[in-house]
Amino acid sequence: MATHRFTPTHYHTTIGSHEPVLHIADGDTVITTTVDARGKDATNQVVTPRGNPQTGPFYVEGAEPGDTLALHLDHLAPNRDIGWSGTVIAANVVDPEFVRSLPENELAEWRIDRARNTGTLISPKTSLGELTLPLAPMLGCFGVAPVLGQAINTGTSGEWGGNMDYRGFVSGVTVYFPVAVPGALVHVGDGHAVQGDGEIVGTGIEISFDVQFTVRVIKNKKITWPRGENGEYIFTVGNARPLDQAVQHATTEMLRWLQADYGMDYVAASTLLGQTVEYDLGNIFDPAYTMVCKLPKRVLAGYNKTSSC
Amino acid sequence: MATHRFTPTHYHTTIGSHEPVLHIADGDTVITTTVDARGKDATNQVVTPRGNPQTGPFYVEGAEPGDTLALHLDHLAPNRDIGWSGTVIAANVVDPEFVRSLPENELAEWRIDRARNTGTLISPKTSLGELTLPLAPMLGCFGVAPVLGQAINTGTSGEWGGNMDYRGFVSGVTVYFPVAVPGALVHVGDGHAVQGDGEIVGTGIEISFDVQFTVRVIKNKKITWPRGENGEYIFTVGNARPLDQAVQHATTEMLRWLQADYGMDYVAASTLLGQTVEYDLGNIFDPAYTMVCKLPKRVLAGYNKTSSC
Amino acid sequence: MATHRFTPTHYHTTIGSHEPVLHIADGDTVITTTVDARGKDATNQVVTPRGNPQTGPFYVEGAEPGDTLALHLDHLAPNRDIGWSGTVIAANVVDPEFVRSLPENELAEWRIDRARNTGTLISPKTSLGELTLPLAPMLGCFGVAPVLGQAINTGTSGEWGGNMDYRGFVSGVTVYFPVAVPGALVHVGDGHAVQGDGEIVGTGIEISFDVQFTVRVIKNKKITWPRGENGEYIFTVGNARPLDQAVQHATTEMLRWLQADYGMDYVAASTLLGQTVEYDLGNIFDPAYTMVCKLPKRVLAGYNKTSSC
Amino acid sequence: MATHRFTPTHYHTTIGSHEPVLHIADGDTVITTTVDARGKDATNQVVTPRGNPQTGPFYVEGAEPGDTLALHLDHLAPNRDIGWSGTVIAANVVDPEFVRSLPENELAEWRIDRARNTGTLISPKTSLGELTLPLAPMLGCFGVAPVLGQAINTGTSGEWGGNMDYRGFVSGVTVYFPVAVPGALVHVGDGHAVQGDGEIVGTGIEISFDVQFTVRVIKNKKITWPRGENGEYIFTVGNARPLDQAVQHATTEMLRWLQADYGMDYVAASTLLGQTVEYDLGNIFDPAYTMVCKLPKRVLAGYNKTSSC
Repeated sequence: MATHRFTPTHYHTTIGSHEPVLHIADGDTVITTTVDARGKDATNQVVTPRGNPQTGPFYVEGAEPGDTLALHLDHLAPNRDIGWSGTVIAANVVDPEFVRSLPENELAEWRIDRARNTGTLISPKTSLGELTLPLAPMLGCFGVAPVLGQAINTGTSGEWGGNMDYRGFVSGVTVYFPVAVPGALVHVGDGHAVQGDGEIVGTGIEISFDVQFTVRVIKNKKITWPRGENGEYIFTVGNARPLDQAVQHATTEMLRWLQADYGMDYVAASTLLGQTVEYDLGNIFDPAYTMVCKLPKRVLAGYNKTSSC
Repeated sequence: MATHRFTPTHYHTTIGSHEPVLHIADGDTVITTTVDARGKDATNQVVTPRGNPQTGPFYVEGAEPGDTLALHLDHLAPNRDIGWSGTVIAANVVDPEFVRSLPENELAEWRIDRARNTGTLISPKTSLGELTLPLAPMLGCFGVAPVLGQAINTGTSGEWGGNMDYRGFVSGVTVYFPVAVPGALVHVGDGHAVQGDGEIVGTGIEISFDVQFTVRVIKNKKITWPRGENGEYIFTVGNARPLDQAVQHATTEMLRWLQADYGMDYVAASTLLGQTVEYDLGNIFDPAYTMVCKLPKRVLAGYNKTSSC
Repeated sequence: MATHRFTPTHYHTTIGSHEPVLHIADGDTVITTTVDARGKDATNQVVTPRGNPQTGPFYVEGAEPGDTLALHLDHLAPNRDIGWSGTVIAANVVDPEFVRSLPENELAEWRIDRARNTGTLISPKTSLGELTLPLAPMLGCFGVAPVLGQAINTGTSGEWGGNMDYRGFVSGVTVYFPVAVPGALVHVGDGHAVQGDGEIVGTGIEISFDVQFTVRVIKNKKITWPRGENGEYIFTVGNARPLDQAVQHATTEMLRWLQADYGMDYVAASTLLGQTVEYDLGNIFDPAYTMVCKLPKRVLAGYNKTSSC
Repeated sequence: MATHRFTPTHYHTTIGSHEPVLHIADGDTVITTTVDARGKDATNQVVTPRGNPQTGPFYVEGAEPGDTLALHLDHLAPNRDIGWSGTVIAANVVDPEFVRSLPENELAEWRIDRARNTGTLISPKTSLGELTLPLAPMLGCFGVAPVLGQAINTGTSGEWGGNMDYRGFVSGVTVYFPVAVPGALVHVGDGHAVQGDGEIVGTGIEISFDVQFTVRVIKNKKITWPRGENGEYIFTVGNARPLDQAVQHATTEMLRWLQADYGMDYVAASTLLGQTVEYDLGNIFDPAYTMVCKLPKRVLAGYNKTSSC
């Protein structure tokens, strides 16, 4: 249960079977940093090429294919005072003919007040004035190495996680990934100080982060898609296009979870989900879109949980 | 500002330019009833063929094409003690290969306790036991007559509303529809005592309803897709397949709204939406799926609202 | 087996249970005309509002729900010397960001030489010069009244046919529709002198037509989606969005056909289709897209055909 | 312009920046072999793990990012006498509810008669009897290394090519790929003796191949998606889900091609494509679907071709 402080010296714009930067044990905690989506660090200097550069990978001892890696997001926080965002809704999020009406995208700047926990719009000058929003720091892109020795760009996502850009990935959440390679190979990056559903301007408020996470290996536990939980919900994540397919992946994974760990057959699971399920739109911008299938823990109270995820 | 009590004697399974059952004035209130999706009334007797039968249409004096009709849902409540739902997740909501694993759908019965405001699962017998959920009554299918004299089945939805199956259409919400024919021709039906996001078992807890609504005509106000508001949000509704297109419709409509009524250009509107928008999944079961684009009223405080919707 | 010459005096921009203009018998032939998509007739005068106006409906005696209507397209031919088309690819057919690069659409004019069977581009002036193409006249929008007394706009399509904009609907083809109302109620309109796959500029070369067709009622034959055949292929038609769903409809209908009329179980039908099926893209412009699933008659030679469609 | 005979000793189930097996020059020809999708060679022995194993990669001297690689498929031919295919239409290709009706997939065997150029169904026994089809050998999965040092599994496809499963990739075709890494790194595999459109049973008639191809480097020619040509057509390839997006990629690439190499502005290109374009469905089975946008060379006769692809 050691705590490792790790200062990155290089980054990856693919998630894959790269040389580990650190070996850690089951139960260990890592305290590190991430650069922003364009490769800028806590001093706002470009230190690596853009494209959601990842810190890591971290090799988790004992994690093998067929296991599940639990990644607890202990602490996520911006570590500088300036963030940036897109200013025009992405072309794929509006009616095709309406694209002609959209202006060109430029970057907005936000002043991040870490003491007050707010972000304030500095530029461009619009009728919004100095719009101020509460911070809700989240990780946009993170995950484990995919199967087959693949190395996949950090613009997209899949069973391994990746660029899911889901604003539910905040401090306090546990995320479960299917382990595909020995050591799992944890990658983290792409912090957002704030983000709406869907990441519809193509960005959150992008910023460098302090990140602390803790890993746990769940042996001989096979899952297909990322899962997670917070105080109120268990949830599953589907990454695909169109959104319909992302919903299919997430919902199927939830049915498997309820069957395997809560002893529900598909009639019970369907009847429960039908009247209580909630869905979040993670992102509708990246090559793979993300939908999250959520079940409130309150409706699960009393059902026998037979397994750890 | 009259209040009309209307007892239906027939129902429609299309939304269209049918003979009005009642003429009402701008500002009037209607108190009526709806049968459930299979045509059963408050006594649980089949009184009309199945398929989301609609009460109405109600002709609103003064409503003309080019206007908007505001429909305030004053009161929605089940008016009997038994509801029913599907028990198997719809085939289109899971991974295609997984469909082979699903059992056949049968109907579940729920006992509705109107005093305690709960629904309790009676059958089938599952590991859920007598699952009890709080009621959250909503209208599944309602709207106004579509353009061109069309009559469109109550299984689907479009610009005119229809079978949106969005669990946000509860008492206290105002829904705005584009008026396409003189009198608007309001139809209401398909009450659900409870429903999860997406209506993924193909039903909510289906039941007959007492319905009270109040209409208001907003002259010379053109909208394209349904809009709405409640205490916390303004929202827009897109109905289409795939979900991606429903998102496009809803988001485009929200941009138009922010421009026309809040004086925001597309940079301001995009910058605001990008970091604060929320989406709800209305339904992912019907021929047209429904996505809802929501903006919290708190982030709009201080912006000049120049128009009524 | 009468032949009726019918001169239309009004048109419909919905396909539905409208008052029939003529009652015809099983086996009868109709010779009539259609206006172009903008309501212009053989003299190039606007005679009715735009939107694929339909000639008809024609009531076929003896056709009842549960039957199939065979509509043989005996003869389709432009009946004037000028046609028009769109000049810019529809926004939904290119990458969303690329829409910004597209010019505004204007109408092109084509001179139709009926003697030489060619269309020649007259305007606008482009590097194409006087591009000349062979005519391949087809019907863009036609079908029978849909179920439930619906009246559905002629911009879209479904099980009833409608605006399929498939360039395979040429003279000599037989199209099969599911009969949904007594008399079937045949509508015809929207002739194209030429069209590429997909109708990707939103039009073919639009023009008024002489149309001759012959009907046949196949009693107690239920089909779900339109089917057809020509000298080389049997085919099925799926209308939906996205294209994936149109493929699903068409392919499922073909499996049903091979099972019911060629005595193939799903293993035989799949094994055959897997290595010999062809698909055409009907349209990717209208609200419902169209995909056509085709099986060459040569690979069916020798299999017992047990029924007429 | 050397000819290299290369016998593979290992294979890859990702397409990526792997160690080259051979360096070849611009203009060179390679004669080699590929194993079938399950890793079986010309003797029908498993020699490598399944999953469209690739022969290569071949490093093409002089190919640099920003160039285009022209890959001419000189000769593709099965090199053994037995092939196999799926026997049940893939679940994603039929209506979701219809999946319940499908039997389980098993493998069919086909006897390949290379002298007569036919494939004959041997098992299972169905009403098809000994169905015999003419061979039409094509490459299912091939391409060049993708950008960013990615290694991507051979089940899917993208800008780099990959598992496009398009039955148009036959002997005599030239395919153009965007070069993303030095040497391009050509991979070839997954031969099909026969395949219908869409690869709807998840396979063609899968078999090991003799493959001969010739490479040419087109310097400083940037393309985005694969392109190709045969005697009758130029074509572009889009790989994505849903099919709609594959059409968007392919059509956008065709517009760029007509503009850059045929001097057509978007009005000219659109007007021409609108009335003459054809689309093929490559595959609707793999994670990324494939649509091909084709323009007949006959309609391009007379337009100035200013560049080589």
